[in-house]
Amino acid sequence: MNLSHAPLAITLGDPAGIGPEVILGAWARLRAERRAPPAFVVGGAGLLRAAGEALRIDCPVVPIATADEAAFACAAGLPVMAGLDVPYAPGQPTADGAQAALASLQWGTRLARAGTAAGVVTAPIAKAALAAIGWDYPGQTEYLADACGAPYRDAVMMLAGPSLRTVPLTVHVALAEVPTLLSPGLIVHKARIVAAGLTRDFGIPRPRLAIAALNPHAGEQGQFGDEEARIIAPAIAELRAEGIDATGPVPGDALFTPRARQGYDAALCMYHDQALIPLKALEFDEGVNVTLGLPIIRTSPDHGTAFDIAGKGLADPGAMAAAILMAADMAMARHRG
Amino acid sequence: MNLSHAPLAITLGDPAGIGPEVILGAWARLRAERRAPPAFVVGGAGLLRAAGEALRIDCPVVPIATADEAAFACAAGLPVMAGLDVPYAPGQPTADGAQAALASLQWGTRLARAGTAAGVVTAPIAKAALAAIGWDYPGQTEYLADACGAPYRDAVMMLAGPSLRTVPLTVHVALAEVPTLLSPGLIVHKARIVAAGLTRDFGIPRPRLAIAALNPHAGEQGQFGDEEARIIAPAIAELRAEGIDATGPVPGDALFTPRARQGYDAALCMYHDQALIPLKALEFDEGVNVTLGLPIIRTSPDHGTAFDIAGKGLADPGAMAAAILMAADMAMARHRG
Repeated sequence: MNLSHAPLAITLGDPAGIGPEVILGAWARLRAERRAPPAFVVGGAGLLRAAGEALRIDCPVVPIATADEAAFACAAGLPVMAGLDVPYAPGQPTADGAQAALASLQWGTRLARAGTAAGVVTAPIAKAALAAIGWDYPGQTEYLADACGAPYRDAVMMLAGPSLRTVPLTVHVALAEVPTLLSPGLIVHKARIVAAGLTRDFGIPRPRLAIAALNPHAGEQGQFGDEEARIIAPAIAELRAEGIDATGPVPGDALFTPRARQGYDAALCMYHDQALIPLKALEFDEGVNVTLGLPIIRTSPDHGTAFDIAGKGLADPGAMAAAILMAADMAMARHRG
Repeated sequence: MNLSHAPLAITLGDPAGIGPEVILGAWARLRAERRAPPAFVVGGAGLLRAAGEALRIDCPVVPIATADEAAFACAAGLPVMAGLDVPYAPGQPTADGAQAALASLQWGTRLARAGTAAGVVTAPIAKAALAAIGWDYPGQTEYLADACGAPYRDAVMMLAGPSLRTVPLTVHVALAEVPTLLSPGLIVHKARIVAAGLTRDFGIPRPRLAIAALNPHAGEQGQFGDEEARIIAPAIAELRAEGIDATGPVPGDALFTPRARQGYDAALCMYHDQALIPLKALEFDEGVNVTLGLPIIRTSPDHGTAFDIAGKGLADPGAMAAAILMAADMAMARHRG
């Protein structure tokens, strides 16, 4: 066990989704492999115990009163902060469940902001269920930026697996809007945050950023599309002038071959699917969503609540385990840095 | 050796590119593995012999006078149709080289049209070198459609690797134009050709087609983009009404996970990179470009002339070997059907 940083706070996510079972499953696996870092779940001791019994997951739940206890409680099982709980009813999102998910997220964020927790690992929430109780953020990332007093444009989503890190520069927008949303300023702003994050949280002194093209074959010298020359190349030139090791524009399909992936630490992509297709094709069960650019460390498994399979023992805890390990590695890198 | 279909015609491609060496390398590998199907190269006996000597590729070149001789000459080495040749000067495209590439393509196509060859496997050409000698097709596929008397819209490019087949419904166009080019008619037309091709040439009685979404998360119920509801879903309904097993629209990033890939025989993609990113990430060295919808069988390795590495012994012949084997399998399927 690694005692050199504060414990991580794992938030519950929607208690009716696969959050409880992947937290327990991930912890059981990490304990069996003797890789569990200091961490605790923010609330839900009864919920998690019920989920463990229902799904026969061999992982004792150890209630704790303060974050300090987590490092020692880890030896006995999964430490869970007492004081917040909700019944276990998988597959059926409720208003009470949404309240619990929100309270866990808010509490975990406060602990991370205060330094009591080394960072947050967030289990998936149900945006519709939260909207129904009056929460008006598009997602957890936007909430976290706000809670940290950071503008949302500083919160940069990076998807990370064992052999690939990708950053979508535009995210949940129509494909038709992507070309109109791209600008040298956007690319430069996000690339700076990615480069700084890779250094601070991943211990890479001089990160290599590969910047994707927008058009097929990077537009083939302007024959089909000129965003490469007009927007992307100027951004790369600006980044290089600042000393950031940025290369490209690289045609999307050339960027993710096994050979190409050796040449960079993160691929910056122009739109959602350009970043997510290769990640999910290559690292499906271990994809971690990392938020860069915030004062706190934040990771989450790259999957949703999956209400349809919740409580059935079908959810793969691999991504949650990877999210916990990555947050711990990031905390170590910050600690060393 | 399989004698149940006519031999395949392998065209030279640009003789200054990696074509000669990947043809020889592929053939040497297929012979060593005792998997070489009946086939011959259309011209270039002296060129190929020189390339083999320069790169020390252990594969005798066996000149033949007619296609009939190919099946027997295969036992001795790589059969090459006599009567067309050009010097070996890798890396330096010339007008003579472009003429030879064109003559090989035209001759091979004629043999396939006549049934003397079971199909064509085309090595990569240099479009600029061919344009310089007055050839005015955008690529080999357009030429082949024309030579077969088929409209170009009937020639559908499919990329195929060992674990994935993808079809880009739009190809070399700016990403910004993609949404304006999609229509239910385009999707239905190409999907019919893909379904028929998978049955005729791949022996799949009832092909399962997965149709990608255009927008992230398939637009999340119209929140970001409505092409799914407006264009893609109606096309799928029309295909299903005809008895074609089409499903979707599937969000791009969900379409290529290991699990999702088990569920279809081909993924129809809305744009170039959506189809090419997963193919090249997963099957880089074995990607085959198949043209469906023409009366003749046609495959090619999914790479270009690579003048920069030609003659250096660096080119991987895996994709050419895969293109030859796939064409042979397609010829067998047609033969059986």
